[in-house]
Amino acid sequence: MSDTAILTLRTMLANLDDAKKYQSLRDVMSTLPAPDLAAVFEDLPPEKLPVLFRLCPKDLAAEIFAELTPETQQDLIDGLTDKELKAVVDDLFVDDATDLVEEMPANVVKRILAQADPATRRMINELLKYPEDSAGGVMTTELMELRPDWTVSQAMAAIRKNGFDKETINNCYVTDRDRTLIGVVSLRALVLSKDPDNELIRDMMDDNVVSVSTTTDQEDVSQMFEKYGYLAIPVVDNEKRLVGIVTIDDAISIMQDEASEDIAKMNAMGPSDKPYFKQSMWELYKNRAPWLLFLMISSTFSSMVIRGYEDALAAVTVLTAYIPMLTDAGGNAGSQSTSTIIRGMAVGDIEPHDLPKILWREFRIAILCGGTLALCNFAKLIFLDGIAPPVAAVVCLTLICTVILSQLIGGLLPVVAEKLNFDPAVMASPLITTIVDTTTLLVYFNIARVLLRI
Amino acid sequence: MSDTAILTLRTMLANLDDAKKYQSLRDVMSTLPAPDLAAVFEDLPPEKLPVLFRLCPKDLAAEIFAELTPETQQDLIDGLTDKELKAVVDDLFVDDATDLVEEMPANVVKRILAQADPATRRMINELLKYPEDSAGGVMTTELMELRPDWTVSQAMAAIRKNGFDKETINNCYVTDRDRTLIGVVSLRALVLSKDPDNELIRDMMDDNVVSVSTTTDQEDVSQMFEKYGYLAIPVVDNEKRLVGIVTIDDAISIMQDEASEDIAKMNAMGPSDKPYFKQSMWELYKNRAPWLLFLMISSTFSSMVIRGYEDALAAVTVLTAYIPMLTDAGGNAGSQSTSTIIRGMAVGDIEPHDLPKILWREFRIAILCGGTLALCNFAKLIFLDGIAPPVAAVVCLTLICTVILSQLIGGLLPVVAEKLNFDPAVMASPLITTIVDTTTLLVYFNIARVLLRI
Repeated sequence: MSDTAILTLRTMLANLDDAKKYQSLRDVMSTLPAPDLAAVFEDLPPEKLPVLFRLCPKDLAAEIFAELTPETQQDLIDGLTDKELKAVVDDLFVDDATDLVEEMPANVVKRILAQADPATRRMINELLKYPEDSAGGVMTTELMELRPDWTVSQAMAAIRKNGFDKETINNCYVTDRDRTLIGVVSLRALVLSKDPDNELIRDMMDDNVVSVSTTTDQEDVSQMFEKYGYLAIPVVDNEKRLVGIVTIDDAISIMQDEASEDIAKMNAMGPSDKPYFKQSMWELYKNRAPWLLFLMISSTFSSMVIRGYEDALAAVTVLTAYIPMLTDAGGNAGSQSTSTIIRGMAVGDIEPHDLPKILWREFRIAILCGGTLALCNFAKLIFLDGIAPPVAAVVCLTLICTVILSQLIGGLLPVVAEKLNFDPAVMASPLITTIVDTTTLLVYFNIARVLLRI
Repeated sequence: MSDTAILTLRTMLANLDDAKKYQSLRDVMSTLPAPDLAAVFEDLPPEKLPVLFRLCPKDLAAEIFAELTPETQQDLIDGLTDKELKAVVDDLFVDDATDLVEEMPANVVKRILAQADPATRRMINELLKYPEDSAGGVMTTELMELRPDWTVSQAMAAIRKNGFDKETINNCYVTDRDRTLIGVVSLRALVLSKDPDNELIRDMMDDNVVSVSTTTDQEDVSQMFEKYGYLAIPVVDNEKRLVGIVTIDDAISIMQDEASEDIAKMNAMGPSDKPYFKQSMWELYKNRAPWLLFLMISSTFSSMVIRGYEDALAAVTVLTAYIPMLTDAGGNAGSQSTSTIIRGMAVGDIEPHDLPKILWREFRIAILCGGTLALCNFAKLIFLDGIAPPVAAVVCLTLICTVILSQLIGGLLPVVAEKLNFDPAVMASPLITTIVDTTTLLVYFNIARVLLRI
């Protein structure tokens, strides 16, 4: 249904100059939710952006604006009058306005702040103080505060009076005189109260309220949403005073971004917060080439090992044929453990102090996996490839050793990275193949030397 | 704060037999949120579970129960009386009760259904009909329905009367006489209404309501939460009749599970829905060994290629030394593209029909990346390794070709998998190294043959 509307809209936009179409354009647009409309803006040439923006349903304008990419926001701002810009900035939630100010170049920021009303400007400046990826950096200050000695009816009256410009009123926060956070009450509980004129907020509030500090890392904040199932989490300063809330829509974006970031890093890429097609050639190159280069240089070690054992390889040339199989098996086994541990740490299932337990598990699994691989491979080498049993034994012994070493290294590396305060996804995953390659080759040639006496 | 309470609780539990401690135990427990209490249950021996459960704050009992792992739920149910079990089942939200019935063995299910009241039993049976990973399988039927011709005051009266056992009332759904979904109203809008006695639901509802069908895949449902920022999404049947809602807490679990699943598959593992330390040795083995085995067997191709070119390698033995570097570079380049495309498709940034655009981007990036690698490597081979220029040229030409081929294959594979209705994360990522290895070796030896005339 909404797909058809988007298609109609795109077709109409191809002829935007035809003034008669404006009304029908407005009609189609009124049937679409803000995120779908924002997607349409992304594909328009800059000069058409303000025209379409003026046709948007007034109540959706700020929401659409907040959904746009920074590039499109800037193009659009350039085409808006000061009065139109003021309307948008006043309607934006203050966390979105702060994001905007963080992304725009200095001259645009100046224009935005000049249009914002003094209260908004003060809140934006307050929020700009916190690091972008901390709870303080993602929170909003537009929350609903209640007093413990109010009755439910008084609280509802306050909500009706002041609730309009709050980002959410589904949860209201109870503070005492010096703004110390002492509890939380849901709008649901207020509405369902049996005796609103006499029931006190103090008696109905949940005083086991979970909060985070302004400096809490945004990834830890998003983990708390998953664990506790809240729709918003209050943010307090060092004196436990309520300064803002992080809402669940922001937590979801953080979660998805952090997962994408980990996947990029695990696959040896610099992370990007832009969708694939929005990244320029140069950005893609910059995120990929340095890692490829770094890994190429580190694989020099495996070349050095091979060159050091050239005589052994010349004596039994068939050994060469199994190098890729062995290093791949090691790399695969190592990535299995490393990625399991990295993800476990990211979602909070695994803590660095679990290291001994991790290594003991990985060791036992590796013996099982390595044993299975070696058995199957031995049969294949003897019966299919027709390899001499001593050579087959060298390959299969190496296989067991490499799987054990790889899964141990794979379990160890992310934890060490975490303890050294490096990002496990960066430190561990891309490196594992290179480290495992060198280890595998050393094991291979040394076993060959001993068993084949070369 | 809550960490200290958890610690105190654990210490007290070590002496649970001491009856005098019960009251102080109860006091500590009343300061903790349900998910933290659930975590404490997980570490208890089965016989202590019912004792502690009886001490829990009554209003949290069902919430704590819903947070437990299926193993602990079963142990606990075994220790509860029929009356206690009935209290839990009646308090559970119906989607949690359905999950419970899905996880428990037949005899436990029989006991649960016998205790559930007839309405709950009917709803559970209704929900059991849908596949576990569809919108129907994760939705709840306990939602708040309103009629379009009610005034706000009438709607609020209905909410006060029937809202208690609904999973959420933050959004209420407007249906007509035959339950066709026609709009959505937030509790916020109802509370903030200026003229509750005269304003009609019909006039204030948002009629651009986005819904999903019972058969929509849960991953697509969770993507819509991210895109539209809703707290709940309504689920409709084939006739557009409202049958349930998916709430955002379920969507968050789905998102995290799907990301974990993709990371596992990208690293050649069967996915698991259990945390690392909750998986048995056998489960870990079962998720890892088959993939290692499959990849080992497929790397037979690279062994075959090397054995086919044994004469060339014997003639210029130094070529062997660069095999790991070349296959690793190809593998790394391939994983970069593959993981980018897989993640892009998972979060909805990339569609299969973008294939030509993907290949053209990957081709250009690959030329840039491959060129950079080849240049740096050529300098290293000549000046550091002292390799003859023709051999260095073979290695570096192969490097460019392999990066281009790998990034093209890496861009192609996930899209092909998606089009064939295979899971891209399974089909593409683990395979890329193996496919790229064989390709790289073929390119390498053929360039060597031509340039070095061997």
